Amino acid sequence: MQQTITVGLLGLGTVGSGVIEILRDHQEQIQHKTGCAVTIKSALVSDLSKPRDLHGEAIQLTDRYEDITRDADIDVIVEVMGGIDHTLPILLEAIENKKHIVTANKDLIAQHGAALYEASQQHQTDLYYEASVAGGIPIIRSIIDGLASDRITKMMGIVNGTTNYIMTKMAQDGVDFDTVLKEAQDLGFAEADPTADVDGLDAARKMAILSILGFSMPFQLDDVEVKGIRGVTQDDIRYAEELGYRIKLIGVAEHDEAGVAVSVEPCLLPVQHPLSSVNDEFNAVYVYGEAVGETMFYGPGAGKLPTATAVVSDLIAVVKNIRLGTTGTDQVQPQFPNQLKDKKEKQTKKYIRLQVLDEPGVLNEITQVFAGYGVSFDQVIQRSTDQPDQRELTLMTHLVSDQDIEQATHDLEGMRSVSAINSIYRVEGGN
Amino acid sequence: MQQTITVGLLGLGTVGSGVIEILRDHQEQIQHKTGCAVTIKSALVSDLSKPRDLHGEAIQLTDRYEDITRDADIDVIVEVMGGIDHTLPILLEAIENKKHIVTANKDLIAQHGAALYEASQQHQTDLYYEASVAGGIPIIRSIIDGLASDRITKMMGIVNGTTNYIMTKMAQDGVDFDTVLKEAQDLGFAEADPTADVDGLDAARKMAILSILGFSMPFQLDDVEVKGIRGVTQDDIRYAEELGYRIKLIGVAEHDEAGVAVSVEPCLLPVQHPLSSVNDEFNAVYVYGEAVGETMFYGPGAGKLPTATAVVSDLIAVVKNIRLGTTGTDQVQPQFPNQLKDKKEKQTKKYIRLQVLDEPGVLNEITQVFAGYGVSFDQVIQRSTDQPDQRELTLMTHLVSDQDIEQATHDLEGMRSVSAINSIYRVEGGN
Repeated sequence: MQQTITVGLLGLGTVGSGVIEILRDHQEQIQHKTGCAVTIKSALVSDLSKPRDLHGEAIQLTDRYEDITRDADIDVIVEVMGGIDHTLPILLEAIENKKHIVTANKDLIAQHGAALYEASQQHQTDLYYEASVAGGIPIIRSIIDGLASDRITKMMGIVNGTTNYIMTKMAQDGVDFDTVLKEAQDLGFAEADPTADVDGLDAARKMAILSILGFSMPFQLDDVEVKGIRGVTQDDIRYAEELGYRIKLIGVAEHDEAGVAVSVEPCLLPVQHPLSSVNDEFNAVYVYGEAVGETMFYGPGAGKLPTATAVVSDLIAVVKNIRLGTTGTDQVQPQFPNQLKDKKEKQTKKYIRLQVLDEPGVLNEITQVFAGYGVSFDQVIQRSTDQPDQRELTLMTHLVSDQDIEQATHDLEGMRSVSAINSIYRVEGGN
Repeated sequence: MQQTITVGLLGLGTVGSGVIEILRDHQEQIQHKTGCAVTIKSALVSDLSKPRDLHGEAIQLTDRYEDITRDADIDVIVEVMGGIDHTLPILLEAIENKKHIVTANKDLIAQHGAALYEASQQHQTDLYYEASVAGGIPIIRSIIDGLASDRITKMMGIVNGTTNYIMTKMAQDGVDFDTVLKEAQDLGFAEADPTADVDGLDAARKMAILSILGFSMPFQLDDVEVKGIRGVTQDDIRYAEELGYRIKLIGVAEHDEAGVAVSVEPCLLPVQHPLSSVNDEFNAVYVYGEAVGETMFYGPGAGKLPTATAVVSDLIAVVKNIRLGTTGTDQVQPQFPNQLKDKKEKQTKKYIRLQVLDEPGVLNEITQVFAGYGVSFDQVIQRSTDQPDQRELTLMTHLVSDQDIEQATHDLEGMRSVSAINSIYRVEGGN
């Protein structure tokens, strides 16, 4: 058996530097666990003249990726350079050259995971990407390990730190979205262009990755229904609280007899639900397995050392596979076609906030519309507003299909007594 | 490399039957992951005449353990029979015969882990026991994996389902300990003799196991300070709530420059702390790593399929190790001496509830006693009682040493104005 595994790094930013540090500090434990030594031979950088802290390690620097992808000594490539279109061909070439890949690049995996899977399947190489989803949580490993002895029916979680920070501050400080976003940008918790985070795209990429793995089906980003948090107001947060709920941006992937549904949207969760207590930039993912029941993993979603730790864990797994002769088997090539649910099959509870005329019989008129679609209610709050002729009506439904709710709200929009449909959110975490 | 791994089962109760079921249903995935087939050859039972459901598998039954421990075909022994004094010599003999062990037996590991470690070290065999702590949570694997790239500073969690069920019901329904215990016993959530659970011994065994692994130090059960939940009253639960806290039976293992402290005791946790939302019979463990920060694992603590799933995960790990030639390296033989903290070094926040005379100057008298030991307060509630001459005083301190609090309460006991020291609990989960 091979006694040394040689690694090439693509990228030498904070995560790459963290990987060097951890490998150096934990050499002995890694040798112990894998039965062989792991060394970094070379690293791709964009600027050779920039001074770098290599933590005392003798690592060759290059600005030509071929020096790494074509180096016959190198067994595993760790990709921490980011980017999509520029990076994909480099990794594909590496795979063709029989290199195993460990990557932290969520965008690349979400967009080109299928192409990378296929190439690694063809060349019997490993493709690991634990660090791409919720860096500090071993969620991908847990799902893949779990699959060997269980069947996953649902995954639900907070997988974007920026939006969770914003939702936490909105709830705790009572300030509106724009104010918190500005503050988060000033503190470096949100990017100058926050679109990918606040509109749910980043979370959707992660849910697509988790769904491919957990359900063993191919998913595109387009298969994920996405709604961001821009529309969430203090009114909704306050009403939710009164009903016993908190609002969080939640990714949900469900699989039952009717099919699969994957979404990212602001959801109401009971305050006593463990996900309601996941605050600030933390991530957490619930996994429901038929055998094991519900489990949850909670931790930092990003950061230099959490991400580098996840990369090193993947590297250890790849090294073990190389020595076991089981490379290329762990990436869970989708085995089933995906059967996405249609609007009739998607059943959830909904929170609906309406503004209605303050006239006798209006509540009855509205509940009649809903009743026509078989929608009944768990909780109702009716309350006066600043405008003397207007009332606010907050409804929480029992299970309804997306289609029924769509048709009911369409009918409501045409009614004289309904001044506005302020918000509709999914309710999760109940029985 | 070996193409089939053969397993012998010690015990064929609910967990053993679950193991057979899972291995049968997931044969293909397991072969995929490990690169070889895994089959169960034989099982030890106490009564050969009892009919058994072997899920269609051809498994030989025997009532002589030697048929398994001495069978040259058998590579791995799965011990799910329970028991301590009777079971230890069987496993030691198995290890001498070079069998790898997977066990769900927490009592045995907590009491004789060191002897089993030593034997497996000597014979270069594997010893895995994920199912012994919080069955449905891959906590031991996470700690061992984490150790390859991080350093653990603290573990804190709810590791006993029965007591968590009782504490949850006490808080939610406002009924006292004895009533809930009776109810739990009727429902089968608590045993007829609940001592090991309610007095914290079961949780202490699990914390000892986690501490040995997480800190790589030898611990005895006696090293764990244990206080059960019998003394927790509705008064305490109510005051805690008013202060913004919940009371849970919490295991804490901490490691800093001053040393290590491991304990199991009822603690106050802020309501917004994720552990406060862990209800009913669920378990959850927080792990603080220097690199990764805080992570939490939540799931069922027991049950047939969660436990059997954990056993099968261990089995897969052992099979991989056999094929890698790395058996005997994963059990983390303690590397450091344990340095337990003394009373002066143990610093925690405390919640203290006193009954005092309703006279002028009493509060001042009492705070002076505490001030003499450098104890200051974060929150104070003073309130009248049913008795006209008595008041109730609830104090929450900043960090204090066990020694200072012990001396201060000793002084209070001798004071005329202090009628009773009702309760003292640790406060966790703050900053």
